[in-house]
Amino acid sequence: MPEGLSVSERYSRLREALAAVVGPRHLLADAADLAPHLVEERGRYRGRSPFLVRPGSTEETAEVVRLCAEARVPIVPQGGNTGLCAGAIPFEAGDEIVVSLGRLKRIRDLDAENFTITVEAGCILAELQQAAAEADRLFPLSLGAQGSCQIGGNLSTNAGGVQVLRYGNMRDLTLGLEVVLPDGQIWDGLRGLRKDNTGYDLKQLFLGAEGTLGIVTAAVLKLFARPREIVTAFVAVPSPQAAVALLGRARSATGETVTSFELIPRLGLEMALRRIDGCSDPLSAPSPWYLLIELYGGGDEGSLAEALESLLERAFEESLITDAAIAQNAQQAADFWRLREGLVEAQKHEGGSIKHDVSVPVSRVPAFIAEATAEVERRIPGVRPVPFGHVGDGNIHFNLSQPEGSEREVFLARWEEINEAVHDIVARLGGSFSAEHGLGRMKVAEAERLKPPIEIEMMRRIKQTFDPHNLMNPGKVVRPDRPEGV
Amino acid sequence: MPEGLSVSERYSRLREALAAVVGPRHLLADAADLAPHLVEERGRYRGRSPFLVRPGSTEETAEVVRLCAEARVPIVPQGGNTGLCAGAIPFEAGDEIVVSLGRLKRIRDLDAENFTITVEAGCILAELQQAAAEADRLFPLSLGAQGSCQIGGNLSTNAGGVQVLRYGNMRDLTLGLEVVLPDGQIWDGLRGLRKDNTGYDLKQLFLGAEGTLGIVTAAVLKLFARPREIVTAFVAVPSPQAAVALLGRARSATGETVTSFELIPRLGLEMALRRIDGCSDPLSAPSPWYLLIELYGGGDEGSLAEALESLLERAFEESLITDAAIAQNAQQAADFWRLREGLVEAQKHEGGSIKHDVSVPVSRVPAFIAEATAEVERRIPGVRPVPFGHVGDGNIHFNLSQPEGSEREVFLARWEEINEAVHDIVARLGGSFSAEHGLGRMKVAEAERLKPPIEIEMMRRIKQTFDPHNLMNPGKVVRPDRPEGV
Repeated sequence: MPEGLSVSERYSRLREALAAVVGPRHLLADAADLAPHLVEERGRYRGRSPFLVRPGSTEETAEVVRLCAEARVPIVPQGGNTGLCAGAIPFEAGDEIVVSLGRLKRIRDLDAENFTITVEAGCILAELQQAAAEADRLFPLSLGAQGSCQIGGNLSTNAGGVQVLRYGNMRDLTLGLEVVLPDGQIWDGLRGLRKDNTGYDLKQLFLGAEGTLGIVTAAVLKLFARPREIVTAFVAVPSPQAAVALLGRARSATGETVTSFELIPRLGLEMALRRIDGCSDPLSAPSPWYLLIELYGGGDEGSLAEALESLLERAFEESLITDAAIAQNAQQAADFWRLREGLVEAQKHEGGSIKHDVSVPVSRVPAFIAEATAEVERRIPGVRPVPFGHVGDGNIHFNLSQPEGSEREVFLARWEEINEAVHDIVARLGGSFSAEHGLGRMKVAEAERLKPPIEIEMMRRIKQTFDPHNLMNPGKVVRPDRPEGV
Repeated sequence: MPEGLSVSERYSRLREALAAVVGPRHLLADAADLAPHLVEERGRYRGRSPFLVRPGSTEETAEVVRLCAEARVPIVPQGGNTGLCAGAIPFEAGDEIVVSLGRLKRIRDLDAENFTITVEAGCILAELQQAAAEADRLFPLSLGAQGSCQIGGNLSTNAGGVQVLRYGNMRDLTLGLEVVLPDGQIWDGLRGLRKDNTGYDLKQLFLGAEGTLGIVTAAVLKLFARPREIVTAFVAVPSPQAAVALLGRARSATGETVTSFELIPRLGLEMALRRIDGCSDPLSAPSPWYLLIELYGGGDEGSLAEALESLLERAFEESLITDAAIAQNAQQAADFWRLREGLVEAQKHEGGSIKHDVSVPVSRVPAFIAEATAEVERRIPGVRPVPFGHVGDGNIHFNLSQPEGSEREVFLARWEEINEAVHDIVARLGGSFSAEHGLGRMKVAEAERLKPPIEIEMMRRIKQTFDPHNLMNPGKVVRPDRPEGV
């Protein structure tokens, strides 16, 4: 850092230098241009930043990082800014530069025989899915924000979604990474290998690190065969216990082809029916719980549907399920998914929501739902829990709508208290208080409260080793145990 | 470290203290008792050690590590000692204590509904497979040494084997770890969760680290549905190109149920036929290459076999394959596998072997085999290459039998030279010089030669951060850039 410069001089010199690297029109400083990059998806946090830069290549990204490191100016890397824990926006202090990866959006390579695709960080998830499909391949990652989220963010948050049961999360789908390190060096780890045991698996450090150890600029990702047959069913089950029992049978009876296994409570279905256009109940009588089950197969048309049908018949005879509809065409399947996706949207119209993104061992999902529901009902009479989501992964979005007729702000003021109570139950059941959304800024304190101290200590040591000046997305994921320099 | 003690006093005090922790009969110091623990599988290295301890629990392991750390005495953790890179035996200097994990062999828990098993490091792989099968579950890791290798070694080397294509390697199969850190603290990361994004994924550091960052004492591992139908085929293909093309079609046509896809060259088959009792050629006419293909399914008996049969018929019409036999019963399937496993054993009877465990992108396997074969034939006229193995993962065991009638020692003296030449080809093709066996002691120098310097530097930083006194399996995987203390 140049000695003797004032802070404003330092930033103004840095700004000039960065503009020279990325080109002046890719350095945004107007409030209006910056605004959408300073607020996160749910609007709970709003940060400040002197300017944002949009590098156009890995080399430009490296030079940006190098210049910021030299000036000791902190960086917030940002992709599609669809994260739910405020991990990709700056703090209010206003001293962080936002580095937006949106211009790095090339698909560098698709190797169909190797079942891999090499993409840059700014590539939109849906475009990647499309490129894979055009090569008769499947990129399985699938989540609500796929039309705007970027793959760099998916990598940095180890994104999950609705197909993890079958294909794994983003970490499992990644074979190689290219990363700009906190000092501006480029690490080219873009290997497309299924087996590579030549030392510590360095890419694992950057996956899910939310930009706190470097900036992911590109990745080699696994592709799969595109399914020849997709079977989608909407099933009524009497209880979460029955759902879990059915999962085990479905995995066995269909040769591990279960791709999605989503739980929906009656209240969530009703909200979707009430609030979302074009939703209708696929079954004739109401049920307390539903499952949206989807299988991906490759055999002759119809064989997987037959396997599922016969499984559901046996389950019906044993009262494990009470009714079921198997989609007869793509439109019906889309209608089932519309209910599942719609309940999230519908909940926004039902007043305030207090949300949880938790996981427990699959076998403990029923206990979690029962205990957490009892606890929040005890604390807030009339609260409307809508526990839904990826029961096949043990990942429940335990979202609570405010009691009918209550005041939104009064309800939302209890966010932290309710989070703590629910997370304590999760911890007792051996679960995670952040299953797929990460820590970002929002859950750092909760991590310090709930994770074993030795884990926080190891995380701090890793952060200190790779980013000794605490310049890469500081304050996210892991905080130093004391302010720098003290 | 107590000041002013001689080295021999230090070791003698430590020995007493360790005997008190594990019990005197679990401290072995007799040369005969130690001997099998000081030499690795292939007999290329033989180390020395003052004694070996066998802790009986995680707590005892932690106390052993703590005492060694306090005395600044280095440790070599050891499982079944079946590794192929000398990673689990001490050096010749004789100052390292061997810590054998064999007594930690409990299966702590099996949760069938969560599809997980919690096992201790000393559990034999085959026993774990058996326990899973008894609960109607599959633990898929499968490799030659499964009757004696221990799961702690599998974890620490990120073991691969013959089912990685479908189920992933050991890293992919692991949900949680319990680790004794280099200072003797216990990290309990035994979580059985499919989704857990609460910070850096610490377990990844210890997986594949070959005991250089701590001692893995237990793990939570994924289980799968036990296949209801297993289809095994022995297929003649004209070339590695045809094998790769068939792989893509098989993955698509069978709904990603291809579990094993193993390449066998004619010479390897002939060696097995010549040397291994009970082997016979499943096909009537010789072919330059063969594939052993295995699919795991769950549907009605026969549906997967039909899918494979119709795929092979189409492939035959297009001259992608020249002949095929589908096993009609378990005995025939076992006979096919006997050829695949037998060729490794058979090669031992064909004189000296120079071995390589390499991977390249699957699409480049044909180029690799062609280039590497030409290169070694140029260097050693008459050499007999037997490139075989996991072509579905791009992982080829490129093993070379000495020319007929040549001298074994003269041939083996060229091990390093030939390794370097082959690894250079691998590097040019974007591959790995150690696909599944790790680095151990044997390939550390090769890692320093071939890996980007920045990767070696990151590995050194991690090692330094977690094991600042270089006491955990020192000299394996990554060496400090200078001797400690200089």
